Amino acid sequence: MRILVTGADGFLGRGLTAALATAYPAARRLVLTDRAFAGPAPSGSEAVAGDLGDQDFLRDLLEPGFDLVFHLASVPGGLAEREQDLGHHVNLLAPVALARAVAANRPGARFVFASSIAVYGDLDERPVTAETRPAPLLTYGAHKLMMEILLSDMTRRGTLSAISLRFPGIVARPIGESGHGSAFMSQIFHRIAAGETYDCPIPAASTCWWMSRKAAVSTLLHAARLADPIQTAVQPPVLHADLNEVCDAICRLTGKQARIRWGDDDNLRRIFGAMPPLDATPALALGFRADANLDTLAKAALSGD
Amino acid sequence: MRILVTGADGFLGRGLTAALATAYPAARRLVLTDRAFAGPAPSGSEAVAGDLGDQDFLRDLLEPGFDLVFHLASVPGGLAEREQDLGHHVNLLAPVALARAVAANRPGARFVFASSIAVYGDLDERPVTAETRPAPLLTYGAHKLMMEILLSDMTRRGTLSAISLRFPGIVARPIGESGHGSAFMSQIFHRIAAGETYDCPIPAASTCWWMSRKAAVSTLLHAARLADPIQTAVQPPVLHADLNEVCDAICRLTGKQARIRWGDDDNLRRIFGAMPPLDATPALALGFRADANLDTLAKAALSGD
Repeated sequence: MRILVTGADGFLGRGLTAALATAYPAARRLVLTDRAFAGPAPSGSEAVAGDLGDQDFLRDLLEPGFDLVFHLASVPGGLAEREQDLGHHVNLLAPVALARAVAANRPGARFVFASSIAVYGDLDERPVTAETRPAPLLTYGAHKLMMEILLSDMTRRGTLSAISLRFPGIVARPIGESGHGSAFMSQIFHRIAAGETYDCPIPAASTCWWMSRKAAVSTLLHAARLADPIQTAVQPPVLHADLNEVCDAICRLTGKQARIRWGDDDNLRRIFGAMPPLDATPALALGFRADANLDTLAKAALSGD
Repeated sequence: MRILVTGADGFLGRGLTAALATAYPAARRLVLTDRAFAGPAPSGSEAVAGDLGDQDFLRDLLEPGFDLVFHLASVPGGLAEREQDLGHHVNLLAPVALARAVAANRPGARFVFASSIAVYGDLDERPVTAETRPAPLLTYGAHKLMMEILLSDMTRRGTLSAISLRFPGIVARPIGESGHGSAFMSQIFHRIAAGETYDCPIPAASTCWWMSRKAAVSTLLHAARLADPIQTAVQPPVLHADLNEVCDAICRLTGKQARIRWGDDDNLRRIFGAMPPLDATPALALGFRADANLDTLAKAALSGD
């Protein structure tokens, strides 16, 4: 078994990488790639720094052929909205080239793609189901949706066995990471835990979808092991809660008081803070699981899991 | 006003080109492009042969900037399914590069894109509406849908003012044209008119969506003149009829007897011959019109309009 992880030095990538050695102890190769690595590669893995948009780099990287690819690399939504060319190359052209090259080297390889709930765009109050029609409001979400369609078609043809996972903002990203429109979802964890006042850009009653990195890593690993997918775009189960409820859970865990000034950025609220309930029946039937509850979410988010 | 037509030497392109001089008598430039041209350019237009996938060609072609672009060039669905690399380059990479280059040279240009009802894929018996969730069954349809999403996002940002028109098989294409899975929809016109026996690959009761080239050209011209679009993907009105009804209309017009042996290719029937009714209310409200009835459709199809 040869395994490749892109975006391996990102928040989600580091979590996945730490779990892979345990999940696949007999893997023949575990290759991690990112534009750069902050530290050494974990034992048993090889770190290869480079740009997936560079054809020569991509050809050399994929030379042996991989049986399983986790494609996590992307420019986050806020940054991609400001830097259109960057987003176009990293979030559209590079994954298109990657998927085709993976398929050419190893037809039928499992390709697990980190998609995003940004594919949905404006939602009304009805629960999100498999029938919900995506209509992205950010270029980031448009690119993710385009990739889902490409991967679904490649899976129909049998050139790949792909699964796209629509992730919500994963908590709690490090304070320093930027470019995520949903950064506030992570900030409230860190700020409350540090006893700091936080200016949250959207109102307390805003409803978001929540997932810890621990749950996201389990979701990726579960997708890697699924039988050949019937539906390639999967909405994994999430926790649905408003900011107030999440703050309460953080306060229960940390014993701190929340000192938050709530804002009213309507654009951010519309994109991230107006999420209706989710009917995740199809994903639950496939064995995907959300964090158990807001208390375990808070614990995972603040433990760095 | 500077106007560009891609795929200008194709069946739809030739029909549009013939109408443009009348529709835009004061156009400053009318540039036609295709891989090659069978004849000279119509008076008042410039024909430029080349490959849209060639970056140098594209840069030179778009140098002056165009206010209005009709992007008709594509590899048809049947051929794209067999020749995956060709489809990938012509139906995905080239239009992506074209749309971005048009926007870079002339931000906000009107970009009229010939999309396809192949975006829908499997449909049940419910009428198709603006809420119908596309799920393409052909790579051709997947690429068209990916382009719709890209153009919708570019329009949201104001870099283009795009409209994607979901065309059914346009009738009646010349006998010699190949690569269209829906070729049978054109063949029955020509074969009945010629008094020939025809082996139609799908059953007589198969229901298709119908549009003459004349109606398709009117649809393109109407899209070019619409005010800034609210929805960028438009399902134009079509005629909904089974093959028997269309044969009857052809017989009424030509005075010939239909001599057709009906086949049972279930894959073709599923893709092209199981179309439910269409609720085209949004497009009708925007002023789009279908052929008046099957008799006018047959007349237009056989007159070469």
